[in-house]
Amino acid sequence: MQVDVISSVIEVRSDDFVQKTVIAIDVLRATSTIVTALAHGCSSVVPVETVNQAKQLQLPEDLLGGERFCKKIAGFHFGNSPFEYMTPDIAGKRIVLTTTNGTRAIQKAQRASHVLAGSLLNASACARAAVALKRDVVILCAGTQDEFSLEDGLCAGLLIRKLEDVSNECPETNDFGAAMRLAYDSASDRLEETLLQGSNGKRLSKIGYREDVSFCSQIDRFDLVPILRDQAMIRF
Amino acid sequence: MQVDVISSVIEVRSDDFVQKTVIAIDVLRATSTIVTALAHGCSSVVPVETVNQAKQLQLPEDLLGGERFCKKIAGFHFGNSPFEYMTPDIAGKRIVLTTTNGTRAIQKAQRASHVLAGSLLNASACARAAVALKRDVVILCAGTQDEFSLEDGLCAGLLIRKLEDVSNECPETNDFGAAMRLAYDSASDRLEETLLQGSNGKRLSKIGYREDVSFCSQIDRFDLVPILRDQAMIRF
Repeated sequence: MQVDVISSVIEVRSDDFVQKTVIAIDVLRATSTIVTALAHGCSSVVPVETVNQAKQLQLPEDLLGGERFCKKIAGFHFGNSPFEYMTPDIAGKRIVLTTTNGTRAIQKAQRASHVLAGSLLNASACARAAVALKRDVVILCAGTQDEFSLEDGLCAGLLIRKLEDVSNECPETNDFGAAMRLAYDSASDRLEETLLQGSNGKRLSKIGYREDVSFCSQIDRFDLVPILRDQAMIRF
Repeated sequence: MQVDVISSVIEVRSDDFVQKTVIAIDVLRATSTIVTALAHGCSSVVPVETVNQAKQLQLPEDLLGGERFCKKIAGFHFGNSPFEYMTPDIAGKRIVLTTTNGTRAIQKAQRASHVLAGSLLNASACARAAVALKRDVVILCAGTQDEFSLEDGLCAGLLIRKLEDVSNECPETNDFGAAMRLAYDSASDRLEETLLQGSNGKRLSKIGYREDVSFCSQIDRFDLVPILRDQAMIRF
């Protein structure tokens, strides 16, 4: 199995994903939030790029979620904090979600055979699903405004370790994947602290979302994998 | 001190280097070779991008060095293996060098206040020089054909550790720099083995240059720093 890691959305080339399974990662916070929302009973999460797309797509029963510059969008039901989605209000509902980087990564990956949402919260489940899908894997780190984000890279490294465990082989990786695996190995016993030192961790802490960073630092909190089907992320 | 790491030449933006000291890294093999050549007595190394530029620039006493696809260029005195430059023949000579990625990185950095050539071979000397130059630092990983190369990233991580030692403070880094520092920490006790597993390490081994990889894996073999002055790298 080949497992390549791409450092941010801007690095994507159009043919990178053909015949592959893509695992899109935006640890702080889009993919962590999608995983959390599905774990709390929503039926699906539809990732869209713009606020207008979200409003146009919204059916009467749908809920709107999303952020710009880490803040909730005016008129939306929820922002992009996983804690907002831990409510019975979302049970059975479709959520239309727009975030700055994470939903863009999922959109970019649409040419792949399969698109999964990965985070620290669902790493093992994600690795098992990727192995079950029997394709080479591309781990796409969303990054932040076209820059690499530390937490996405560490999650990529963790996913490679989990893929090794599940597949009982050492997957071939590109050089960037090899570096992320090494970085994860260094940080694995102090993930929360390391995430808090990254640029997104610092920014979120500063504006009152330190608990989000702590929550998103947990490994394998949920045993589920969001997969893209007909433009919506549903449980695999 | 701010120390940012850029993952490959294609990631460079035109204003990244203004008022900064750039440390250009191409561990396999251009910057390792430049360091080795200066350590063996050549007067300067002039990095140029194309074979034609090298020929046009050559004065009667000059030596030509360089590679394309890891092989020596026809009619040139030397290829890009550091071992070729360990000869008294280069004493006092100017060497015009063209390589695929490393010389391009140095060229790209010309708008910086200072441009140094960094490698594992001269990491401590490089960190001391960068601190003495009293500017913020950008570590530019040359990469390979616009892709990140593992050995350049690990060298960037080592340089951050050395900058910490020399400056007695923990420099601020971007997220990519933080990841490279973590990756270096994981690999520091098996650098040669790790370099041999990277894509350049594998490629060089396959075509008979395994010893080059081993040689370039040595930390602080030389106590000198190449710095760019009037288009030529000379001893700092």
